[in-house]
Amino acid sequence: MVAKNIPDIVVGRLPLYLRTLQRMQDEGRLVTSSQELGERLGISAAQIRKDLSQFGEFGKQGTGYNIDYLVNQLRSILKVDRVWDIVVVGAGDIGSAVARYQGFKDRGFRVVMLFDNDPAKIGHHIGEFTVMDTSQLVDAIRSADIKVAMIAVPATAAQAVADQLVKAGVRAILNYAPINLVVPEDVYVQHTDPVTHLQRMTYYLD
Amino acid sequence: MVAKNIPDIVVGRLPLYLRTLQRMQDEGRLVTSSQELGERLGISAAQIRKDLSQFGEFGKQGTGYNIDYLVNQLRSILKVDRVWDIVVVGAGDIGSAVARYQGFKDRGFRVVMLFDNDPAKIGHHIGEFTVMDTSQLVDAIRSADIKVAMIAVPATAAQAVADQLVKAGVRAILNYAPINLVVPEDVYVQHTDPVTHLQRMTYYLD
Repeated sequence: MVAKNIPDIVVGRLPLYLRTLQRMQDEGRLVTSSQELGERLGISAAQIRKDLSQFGEFGKQGTGYNIDYLVNQLRSILKVDRVWDIVVVGAGDIGSAVARYQGFKDRGFRVVMLFDNDPAKIGHHIGEFTVMDTSQLVDAIRSADIKVAMIAVPATAAQAVADQLVKAGVRAILNYAPINLVVPEDVYVQHTDPVTHLQRMTYYLD
Repeated sequence: MVAKNIPDIVVGRLPLYLRTLQRMQDEGRLVTSSQELGERLGISAAQIRKDLSQFGEFGKQGTGYNIDYLVNQLRSILKVDRVWDIVVVGAGDIGSAVARYQGFKDRGFRVVMLFDNDPAKIGHHIGEFTVMDTSQLVDAIRSADIKVAMIAVPATAAQAVADQLVKAGVRAILNYAPINLVVPEDVYVQHTDPVTHLQRMTYYLD
């Protein structure tokens, strides 16, 4: 595996390749090509070949990619050949929906704890979770050695929650709150906000 | 307004600038700088100045940006100086949460319809919405001249829903289903999938 200094934009495309290949597996497919992947993803075949070639030799000219093999390689590269436990902080609409999301299965993640600071929610059940008190967040995450978290609290509370998560040893945060988080350099943050996605499109509309 | 051939990556940063500036407004702030914006966003001040300069002259060397003015300009550029009606297709956990999301307010969007194809949900209330039958989607969207939609149905159903939305005249789709959608060139799609976000981070973890 030669995988040093890969641009983050390339890393960001690997989960899309993996997702598409896993869908092909579900369809019972065995072999694909960079052309077909490109059509499904709206990415050029040349780009896909170039991205994958940074990590090794996964296909042969003319015979395409063995889907099972490439899936296993990508799972290993993205480190989802294991299951990462996740905590969700915020048991509102979005946090509850994400905690119950069935789409994590077989893709490397499992939600194991759901936190909130609202006494009306703490101790109550949401799906299979018993909502835990945010005041216990640092101890609970440290004890369980959890490295991945999702934040689904109001924007005004998100930075304080992020600080707690970092203190607890979390290294990767997916932030649903509509605010940019400031974290140390060795902590990774991805933001998702429906409004910024939508605004990026309305720019192009008449 | 000089705004032709702006790279999409630049367009994608404008909503982040707008969001941060609006937060400063909420904090009662009047003036900011590219340095401060950069610190809040983890983007270099030079990049921010370069991005904004593609759309006009918004600040003066040494005096910074007038926040209200820049907010208004960005709202106009992103075309969220109006309110776009949105439909949500899929009244499961994610769709219901997104339909009820309070964060659209004052940011250019308003959810007006929620669809599902499940007879157990159609006609029932979710928040302030009465779930509508997906079979009426094309007519309802056309009549109301709606251009923006969010898809929150299972992956296997998402492309068919997208085809219906396009047929109904929708031009911008935010897709929560974990599958890539294929749409005509004049339709814009943004994808959001917690798993691809998380995998992009686990790549970097030990």
